[in-house]
Amino acid sequence: KSVDLNSDMGESFGRWTLGDDKALLDVVTSANIACGFHAGDPAGILRTASQAAANHVCIGAHVAYRDLSGFGRRFLDEQPGDLKADVIYQIAALEGIAASVGASVSYVKPHGALYNRIAVDETQARAVVDAIMTVDSSLGLLTLPGSVVGLIAADAGLRVFSEAFADRAYMPDGRLVPRSQSGAVIHDVGEVADRIAKLVAGGTIEAIDGTMIRIDADSICVHGDSPSAVDMARAVRERLESNGVALSSFAGEGRPCAS
Amino acid sequence: KSVDLNSDMGESFGRWTLGDDKALLDVVTSANIACGFHAGDPAGILRTASQAAANHVCIGAHVAYRDLSGFGRRFLDEQPGDLKADVIYQIAALEGIAASVGASVSYVKPHGALYNRIAVDETQARAVVDAIMTVDSSLGLLTLPGSVVGLIAADAGLRVFSEAFADRAYMPDGRLVPRSQSGAVIHDVGEVADRIAKLVAGGTIEAIDGTMIRIDADSICVHGDSPSAVDMARAVRERLESNGVALSSFAGEGRPCAS
Amino acid sequence: KSVDLNSDMGESFGRWTLGDDKALLDVVTSANIACGFHAGDPAGILRTASQAAANHVCIGAHVAYRDLSGFGRRFLDEQPGDLKADVIYQIAALEGIAASVGASVSYVKPHGALYNRIAVDETQARAVVDAIMTVDSSLGLLTLPGSVVGLIAADAGLRVFSEAFADRAYMPDGRLVPRSQSGAVIHDVGEVADRIAKLVAGGTIEAIDGTMIRIDADSICVHGDSPSAVDMARAVRERLESNGVALSSFAGEGRPCAS
Amino acid sequence: KSVDLNSDMGESFGRWTLGDDKALLDVVTSANIACGFHAGDPAGILRTASQAAANHVCIGAHVAYRDLSGFGRRFLDEQPGDLKADVIYQIAALEGIAASVGASVSYVKPHGALYNRIAVDETQARAVVDAIMTVDSSLGLLTLPGSVVGLIAADAGLRVFSEAFADRAYMPDGRLVPRSQSGAVIHDVGEVADRIAKLVAGGTIEAIDGTMIRIDADSICVHGDSPSAVDMARAVRERLESNGVALSSFAGEGRPCAS
Repeated sequence: KSVDLNSDMGESFGRWTLGDDKALLDVVTSANIACGFHAGDPAGILRTASQAAANHVCIGAHVAYRDLSGFGRRFLDEQPGDLKADVIYQIAALEGIAASVGASVSYVKPHGALYNRIAVDETQARAVVDAIMTVDSSLGLLTLPGSVVGLIAADAGLRVFSEAFADRAYMPDGRLVPRSQSGAVIHDVGEVADRIAKLVAGGTIEAIDGTMIRIDADSICVHGDSPSAVDMARAVRERLESNGVALSSFAGEGRPCAS
Repeated sequence: KSVDLNSDMGESFGRWTLGDDKALLDVVTSANIACGFHAGDPAGILRTASQAAANHVCIGAHVAYRDLSGFGRRFLDEQPGDLKADVIYQIAALEGIAASVGASVSYVKPHGALYNRIAVDETQARAVVDAIMTVDSSLGLLTLPGSVVGLIAADAGLRVFSEAFADRAYMPDGRLVPRSQSGAVIHDVGEVADRIAKLVAGGTIEAIDGTMIRIDADSICVHGDSPSAVDMARAVRERLESNGVALSSFAGEGRPCAS
Repeated sequence: KSVDLNSDMGESFGRWTLGDDKALLDVVTSANIACGFHAGDPAGILRTASQAAANHVCIGAHVAYRDLSGFGRRFLDEQPGDLKADVIYQIAALEGIAASVGASVSYVKPHGALYNRIAVDETQARAVVDAIMTVDSSLGLLTLPGSVVGLIAADAGLRVFSEAFADRAYMPDGRLVPRSQSGAVIHDVGEVADRIAKLVAGGTIEAIDGTMIRIDADSICVHGDSPSAVDMARAVRERLESNGVALSSFAGEGRPCAS
Repeated sequence: KSVDLNSDMGESFGRWTLGDDKALLDVVTSANIACGFHAGDPAGILRTASQAAANHVCIGAHVAYRDLSGFGRRFLDEQPGDLKADVIYQIAALEGIAASVGASVSYVKPHGALYNRIAVDETQARAVVDAIMTVDSSLGLLTLPGSVVGLIAADAGLRVFSEAFADRAYMPDGRLVPRSQSGAVIHDVGEVADRIAKLVAGGTIEAIDGTMIRIDADSICVHGDSPSAVDMARAVRERLESNGVALSSFAGEGRPCAS
């Protein structure tokens, strides 16, 4: 039995530091690295990619809407042709940075508002899938279970991987409880570790109303932008390892992450 | 006898259009395409790269300082590590866009203030050369004859190509007359064609003081950001062709520009 | 009888020129000047404001979403508190530029996607109205007849002015025919002048299905971002003047536009 | 005897947080608030301005080169006309934000590379002074003792104030030891408090070679972008107060900072 742990990284920008990439890269097996559109300047992206390569952590392109001031968390009503070109540009730029440190990009995980949008919006989902297919059809796509973009990507022949969120509460229908609702985020480290251990062992998690729901997860997303998040990621990893679960990148199956 | 004609392209941005890339791509043999830092959004860059590929025009990465409001024409006192990462990012992003339309990047031509700076500044020149070597040591570098960056690049093993400027006056020492001085830009199309024809035939051009100077030019730069510039580019091409000079990309020697 | 003519201006950015502000300022009575978020750098805004002041043309703040690459034409799902602050910032910045050339800002006209959004979205509309009230409750608001933002602004005590579009076709219910539909834009200069002359004389315009509809317009919007647009603006102005209609700013009633 | 304490603030941007403005506003008497060009988005600037107003802390416009990715710390070779317009825009935008929370801007402190440049470059210094004079000739200017911009500003009739740096070592000629040299930054809180107490009492400070030098300081700059910086600012304030020195804004003399 094995599972992947992924986290967002490379989200510093110039003078602004966000997240402890170095610490997280000792814990996770997949690094979603910002590509410059919602966060990440080239020098900072290069540093994170280099550390990921040194730790044999797989690199994913964390593509986003072009919105630094909104950190890619605001929906942008972009034309599909523009979105496709934006995604090609971002993946390619990260590939170049990764290659410069002897690494490569193994998968794509859309970020923030784009991630949420293409879980339901077919037009933008198709633009993102087109972009990935155009750059490299062997790239994986990491997304929500049951998302529209996942279906379109699978149809197009991409390898699609789904993720669960370590510290988020779920609705009975499998969607995340919106952050605006109370109880949306689970702060207790032990509780988070318990939930993930059960999910990985049995494929089910307790929804916010107490019902047990099935979540099919190739990867567990642990967030990285608060100091306690590193502790939580570590706790999840330790619990899984003590349960005999191997931590291993989903992307690593088809292609090696770093030499 | 053959020579290359190059021009800056892909310099539109969103709603703002600059230059007539389509017309120029019927005239030139090398296209310096903006990479998004001084100009160029991904969708626009993609359109220009696609037209270049259709016309079998070689593509160069027109890398620049990150300065959209100044169009990369203002010196930016950037640390070499940051500059190196910025250049890797830009080349890689353009390579991805070019690959998506079946083309590739053959050479790098730094833009604007970066072009001028690394003609004399060893630290920044070295950062740019490091970046190119890191991405692909078979890329060419297009620069001023005798520039510092040209010497460093040649030393590092890069193929270095030099260019002359079709519509610019020269100092007796081979430098360009600064734009702030009168007579710096030659507006007469016939005069420009005459000068370039002589330069390509004999390797010399008349400096602003009337002396004849040697300029070693693998390529002639024709500017593209005014309507008359297209006419001038056409006039130069026609004169050269009627003199029996073949127009052919310098970059094409080592690697095919488009299939 | 009098009416106002307004046009968008100050939309150049750095090296990129858009529109012929100088020519338009001989024609219109109100200038919607970009504030830097969708277009306009400070030096360019200053030039346009200075020309507006010299021509005694009233200045409006053309506030927008922060989206240079999309020219403010893409909806951005921004929180109302952020939007309010963005609008305050933009109006204030333009006021400072205007004051530096002896002019002032008389009104606010939201731009592009923000203009369309707050015609129907109450939350964002309220944020914009709050921002205007906070900066200066004597500022006018220029908007679509019957828009949500117009109702909220009037309720709040702002002076609200409505506009018709010179070259756009109307639906029978008074909305604009979307640009994506054929016939949405009227290109014939004489036809445009006819329609506007009738509208100003009688308050009605022919909709795309041939029915006559009422449009209450304090101002006529003539676009400025194509060469022919200046000709169209001139034609509208000449027709109105030859019909004995005075061209006069709506904003000028309450406050002088420039000394 | 009294002195001012100033610190940089409002330097967060979107998702990125920098400095503890709330804590610093309990300590300092003048807040240099970012204006959006090197840092600061409107909503964040508004929050900091509001807290400054609540604490009766004077607000200064921390104007900068337009360079978010470089945080305004890289020299940008900008034309004086462009720089002047950029500075007018920034001061005006901050004035509007400040006015929206019942506060006002009392002075201007150029930031980072602009601060350093106009200490020696007459052309850019003149552009900044022109901008300030144009916006409001009653604004103060906070700068290095003996700077070129200070001389030009005083000549133009601006009130000029000079500052010393709490945690920086000085050369015997009164310049700061460059950050690249060892010993440039003093980390010991007690030592910093001692130095500033002596400086305020006697007008002298010990240079890095042990000689005592005169520094004429209307204000002491305490940095704000690290957690320990708040402790240092508090230690300086406590030492001064226990020595009977009143903390009071230089800008407050001529105009009240907040009601």
